Amino acid sequence: MSELRRDPIAGSWVIVAPERAARPLDFRRPPPQPAARESCPFCPGRESMTPPEIASVRDGDRWRVRVVPNKFPALRVEEDWREDGDGVLTSMPGVGAHEVVIEGPEHVLSLTELPPERLPEVVAMYRSRLRDLQRDFRLAHGLVFKNVGERAGASLEHVHSQIIATPVVPERVHLEFERCAGFLRATRRCRPCDLVARDLKEGVRVVEESPRFAVVEPWAAKAPFETHIVTKEHAAHFEAIDDGAVAEVAGLLRSALQRVERALDSPAYNILFHTAPLNGASPEGWHWRIEIIPRIAGLAGFEWGTGFFINTVPPEKAAAYLRDLKI
Amino acid sequence: MSELRRDPIAGSWVIVAPERAARPLDFRRPPPQPAARESCPFCPGRESMTPPEIASVRDGDRWRVRVVPNKFPALRVEEDWREDGDGVLTSMPGVGAHEVVIEGPEHVLSLTELPPERLPEVVAMYRSRLRDLQRDFRLAHGLVFKNVGERAGASLEHVHSQIIATPVVPERVHLEFERCAGFLRATRRCRPCDLVARDLKEGVRVVEESPRFAVVEPWAAKAPFETHIVTKEHAAHFEAIDDGAVAEVAGLLRSALQRVERALDSPAYNILFHTAPLNGASPEGWHWRIEIIPRIAGLAGFEWGTGFFINTVPPEKAAAYLRDLKI
Repeated sequence: MSELRRDPIAGSWVIVAPERAARPLDFRRPPPQPAARESCPFCPGRESMTPPEIASVRDGDRWRVRVVPNKFPALRVEEDWREDGDGVLTSMPGVGAHEVVIEGPEHVLSLTELPPERLPEVVAMYRSRLRDLQRDFRLAHGLVFKNVGERAGASLEHVHSQIIATPVVPERVHLEFERCAGFLRATRRCRPCDLVARDLKEGVRVVEESPRFAVVEPWAAKAPFETHIVTKEHAAHFEAIDDGAVAEVAGLLRSALQRVERALDSPAYNILFHTAPLNGASPEGWHWRIEIIPRIAGLAGFEWGTGFFINTVPPEKAAAYLRDLKI
Repeated sequence: MSELRRDPIAGSWVIVAPERAARPLDFRRPPPQPAARESCPFCPGRESMTPPEIASVRDGDRWRVRVVPNKFPALRVEEDWREDGDGVLTSMPGVGAHEVVIEGPEHVLSLTELPPERLPEVVAMYRSRLRDLQRDFRLAHGLVFKNVGERAGASLEHVHSQIIATPVVPERVHLEFERCAGFLRATRRCRPCDLVARDLKEGVRVVEESPRFAVVEPWAAKAPFETHIVTKEHAAHFEAIDDGAVAEVAGLLRSALQRVERALDSPAYNILFHTAPLNGASPEGWHWRIEIIPRIAGLAGFEWGTGFFINTVPPEKAAAYLRDLKI
């Protein structure tokens, strides 16, 4: 029997349909290709193949984390902020930022293949880039995201994330803020605070905990083994976390990825850092969060057309499985 | 230079970024596989491999169009309509309908490979199934959609579409209705009426026209060569069209698909029939439409996380190209 579940934050619906469980396809991610390694623009020694460095973590002339502008940017800081339109057709020049965070000199596919002690430097770099982008008043919203594997939209193997800052808050993100603000006005309750307390009390969707964070399978997971890292504190800005929180997040991100990679045999996946707008009013009654989305099921017409997802693995079952894995 | 464009109906934003044009990958859809043909459950003679027929168009015992329940349904009419929840976590049993429209006895991949005179029968079947589903008061919304090619989520080759009827209006669809109703209240203007008039006047995004319909590349196309069939009449219900309109839609659907298949060398694609809710109040200031979405670019983390799409082909350029094709 399938079940419809409503996302308590975004308001969207999901169909949990275990009977439609994926046929036994081969979801395994291919190992790094030698050809890709030999011409990789992100490997040390090929720094001239990327645009000039924006930031880095280094020992002398050896870098461990390196941030560069995307060579094929969707948006550029050099454009002017200007809204054109006549009330029906609206446009603006493509002002924004599109950066690449090269997360290590090693030509590996996953953050879990880097030495664990280096992960906090990577998470701190995301924080530092968002803080820097915040200084540009034209940028309304920033998303740190990662594409791993071709099915998840990756075009290069070497371990990296991207940051896109847009001059408007994306409509879907804005609606989530509005919805949470509506709950706060109507009930004087913060919906994400209630949700994390509820998840921790019930336990069935919890994978792992640290003092300030929890790894959970969300109630209305859109994809099998979708995994969130949520804060137990009332906090809307990821980029405002302190160094202790950076270390906690890095540790949970690593173990959550290890579990997902073990469970699904190294699937393609995306990671998303949802945070409050870079500029303007902070959303009320909303929390920042990290989403790990395994991309084992394709996005067919129904999902594309309605935003209504069909998920073949109940999140409680996924949580039990991930929790019991030895990592 | 890239440009941000706002979808005048849905409110979502798109980045039109021609500089990020797709690298020369091979997007060609593979020809039908002999193995798939030999075991295809939709071919004549294998009718017992599907659940019992719901409807068909036939000459005696030979069918030309056949509708069956999906063998692995996401939703079932046999469930009870009931909302469970406590104000935070909401769910309901998976009540709904999930049908498959087998569009011809021929084992072909595309509607364009069927004899043109058969297309109106297929479009009339979509209409007839939606009208029938409307009789079940528990069903709030119905989507006719088609997945062609693995990248578009197809698991079977044989030419077919699906219909999913859900007991709630999907959140994204609902917000589009709300947005159009808001325009109507604020300006006393129907936004889709204004939009089609504007597109026809400007001409640059128009591919083809018939007396009552137009084929256009939308202002804020989410994907290269995204193509819409829109009505020039003020009409929210696809399933209310008359037989003359069915013939016009079938003709435009065929020629639009021929153009897209020619332009992109038979890409994977989805077709979506967006129509008003099956039951309940009709949305005000909103029109039904058909969307053809070529799935040549994957959905990476940025699009997944924000609903903000990056499109490498400006719709005006795509329209000029499609318009000039000899079909």
